Amino acid sequence: MNWQHLWIDVNLACMTEQADQPYGVIEDGAVAIEDGKIAWVGKRSELPEFDQHKVAIHRGNSGWMTPGLIDCHTHLVFGGDRAKEFEQRLQGVSYETIAKQGGGIRSTVAATRAADEQTLFDSGRKRLNALMREGVTQVEIKSGYGLDLENEVKQLQVARYLGEVHPIGVSTTCLAAHALPPEYADQPDAYVNLVCDSILPKVSELDLADAVDVFCEGIGFDLSQSEKVLRKAVELGLKPKMHAEQLSNLGGSALAAELGALSVDHIEFLDENGVKALAKSGTVAVLLPGAFYFLRETQLPPLDALREHGVPMAIASDFNPGSSPICSLKLMLNMACTLFSMTPEEALAGVTRHAAKALGLEQQMGQIKAGMQADLALWDIQHPSELSYSYGVNPLQALMIQGKLQQISAT
Amino acid sequence: MNWQHLWIDVNLACMTEQADQPYGVIEDGAVAIEDGKIAWVGKRSELPEFDQHKVAIHRGNSGWMTPGLIDCHTHLVFGGDRAKEFEQRLQGVSYETIAKQGGGIRSTVAATRAADEQTLFDSGRKRLNALMREGVTQVEIKSGYGLDLENEVKQLQVARYLGEVHPIGVSTTCLAAHALPPEYADQPDAYVNLVCDSILPKVSELDLADAVDVFCEGIGFDLSQSEKVLRKAVELGLKPKMHAEQLSNLGGSALAAELGALSVDHIEFLDENGVKALAKSGTVAVLLPGAFYFLRETQLPPLDALREHGVPMAIASDFNPGSSPICSLKLMLNMACTLFSMTPEEALAGVTRHAAKALGLEQQMGQIKAGMQADLALWDIQHPSELSYSYGVNPLQALMIQGKLQQISAT
Ligand SMILES: [Zn+2]
Ligand SMILES: [Zn+2]
Repeated sequence: MNWQHLWIDVNLACMTEQADQPYGVIEDGAVAIEDGKIAWVGKRSELPEFDQHKVAIHRGNSGWMTPGLIDCHTHLVFGGDRAKEFEQRLQGVSYETIAKQGGGIRSTVAATRAADEQTLFDSGRKRLNALMREGVTQVEIKSGYGLDLENEVKQLQVARYLGEVHPIGVSTTCLAAHALPPEYADQPDAYVNLVCDSILPKVSELDLADAVDVFCEGIGFDLSQSEKVLRKAVELGLKPKMHAEQLSNLGGSALAAELGALSVDHIEFLDENGVKALAKSGTVAVLLPGAFYFLRETQLPPLDALREHGVPMAIASDFNPGSSPICSLKLMLNMACTLFSMTPEEALAGVTRHAAKALGLEQQMGQIKAGMQADLALWDIQHPSELSYSYGVNPLQALMIQGKLQQISAT
Repeated sequence: MNWQHLWIDVNLACMTEQADQPYGVIEDGAVAIEDGKIAWVGKRSELPEFDQHKVAIHRGNSGWMTPGLIDCHTHLVFGGDRAKEFEQRLQGVSYETIAKQGGGIRSTVAATRAADEQTLFDSGRKRLNALMREGVTQVEIKSGYGLDLENEVKQLQVARYLGEVHPIGVSTTCLAAHALPPEYADQPDAYVNLVCDSILPKVSELDLADAVDVFCEGIGFDLSQSEKVLRKAVELGLKPKMHAEQLSNLGGSALAAELGALSVDHIEFLDENGVKALAKSGTVAVLLPGAFYFLRETQLPPLDALREHGVPMAIASDFNPGSSPICSLKLMLNMACTLFSMTPEEALAGVTRHAAKALGLEQQMGQIKAGMQADLALWDIQHPSELSYSYGVNPLQALMIQGKLQQISAT
């Protein structure tokens, strides 16, 4: 035993599976850290003996400690912004006119292609900083605004580099099949061939992605195109994910489940058969209340069916310039409760244990448990439900990522 | 001329009335400050000569400067929180059961009565700090959780003291007629007598309030009770305000307008006659998208009628533990656009020029204009519409309140 850190005077919301207590609560707990991992967790009164001189002892002032939060679905590396078209739309300019001006996703693709790595890195870093300020320790970043070999690689390289230099851990996902690039307008099959024959193999060769995602939707790629992309991913040893059932029910989720997808994301229009398929495959349902809010959607994801069949539900920001320009996972906790009627405990599991599973990292993070990465957030709150209930005054008191205390600015 | 500060290398969104440009834009502008007030504003190229040695010159790095933001409707001095009942409600516990447990506003009244001044001050200061971090320079704080003489006075004294020691300016409003205290259950008229004969006179004598508010609603006070309270306010020389037409149309807004109210707030159910009454009296319509969001309301305020009749529309957080536990005015800009389809320019006017008017402070603040208080926010954005469009990465670069630069924590 060679502990470097010990937290005491804290209540723990361990978020462990099959806990006796809601939130996996251990009141007046203790957490010991060794080599960046959690070495011991339990009631303080049951702490084994340890050498007090070798351990940095941190007091939590009776606050609450949770696993570091995990944002398992973002598009946070992109160029430009869409403020102008947001304003135009609210001034009554039609979608058609905005599209004719080169607006919509095309404008983000053009801006991302035009941006150099440094510009993308700088804005990406600011966004990670904002997330870290609210207790986030792991973030997934998707490509999907390059839409050609060079620029998908560029986006993923920036994401990888952010993961290397930023304290937050970064998982990367290749979403080359996000939309049709302008040069392949009306040629979806040809573009899918480019994705499968050129982009994905290169991304795999350079080890730029941990997973592969596809936007399976009427305005995206159809079922057979999506299948082709994800089968290629599996062939390359990359885990599938899918943007599915956001605007209609194409059956994408069942397909993704069959292919062993880590997650299907959005799923407002998912039906019970789809839910059963997810349950069978252990695929995570990632709910994105920020996009639901920003797009003024009305179709709710099938919460009751997901609960009934025991499908793990994650919550993510979907931060992106078009449909969810809100870079806050903490706010998503409130939106999951307010808009989707999830319980605060479900919401918190959605940004910890289940978010880890959506990234295939459930053995490494998402719970306060011996053996897991020491990603720990300390909050000045009276009860874990407060994290979902209120917003605005930042309750984060301390943050540890892989056992290292982070600098967080005071509130 | 004795300038102490000069801002250059900034674009200005002056938010002046009847400006030639949207947002009152002056590109490459300059703002000079003397004795806490704006002494000169215009294009940098038209700056008059000044003594460079006596002036602190601040460069805005081509960012945008707006008036400091004004949150003209909050309840931010209160004890306790309502996280537990938030969680219970989402777990399916009925409103009746929660009410029987002493939940709802009664729990906040009990917690506020039980709290000492220091506790109320400390939590209030944290909330003001959070607002200041996002560019807020003036905040209104209502009482209304004391509901007896001693505790209404206590709440207002804490609010006044916050205004004295915090850089943010504080306007205070006595909302003793917020709800019936438990000791007056089913005796609304007797409580209204207490408010008019005891609480308001004392509050006036101690100069604790700038305005008087009443919750005119089926679950609050009826029209004649509301009238009695506001007439007493006018008699005491205090400006009326009203929580009106939130859940039904009682005609409160027309009454408030007739009494020369500064503002009517919420007004989802306001009809066209009410709108006309506001237009005639110059009363501000204060829209509260946070409460609309949190309560999952569906009835939209009558935006088109308000526009047509030229009623000034303000936006505020309504921050309170029951119906809007979101302490962020910046987020309200996005919610005003997303939920109420306001334009970004209307939203920004709603937290500057029109919010000032809702507090009776339109001669002192809310515009970048010579003679006004030097309350100025500098933002790292490309266009003022960005303030409403995106959220999460804090774009605030610098903040001046009454000509004093504030410490704001880095992003
Ligand atoms: Zn997405
Ligand atoms: Zn209110």
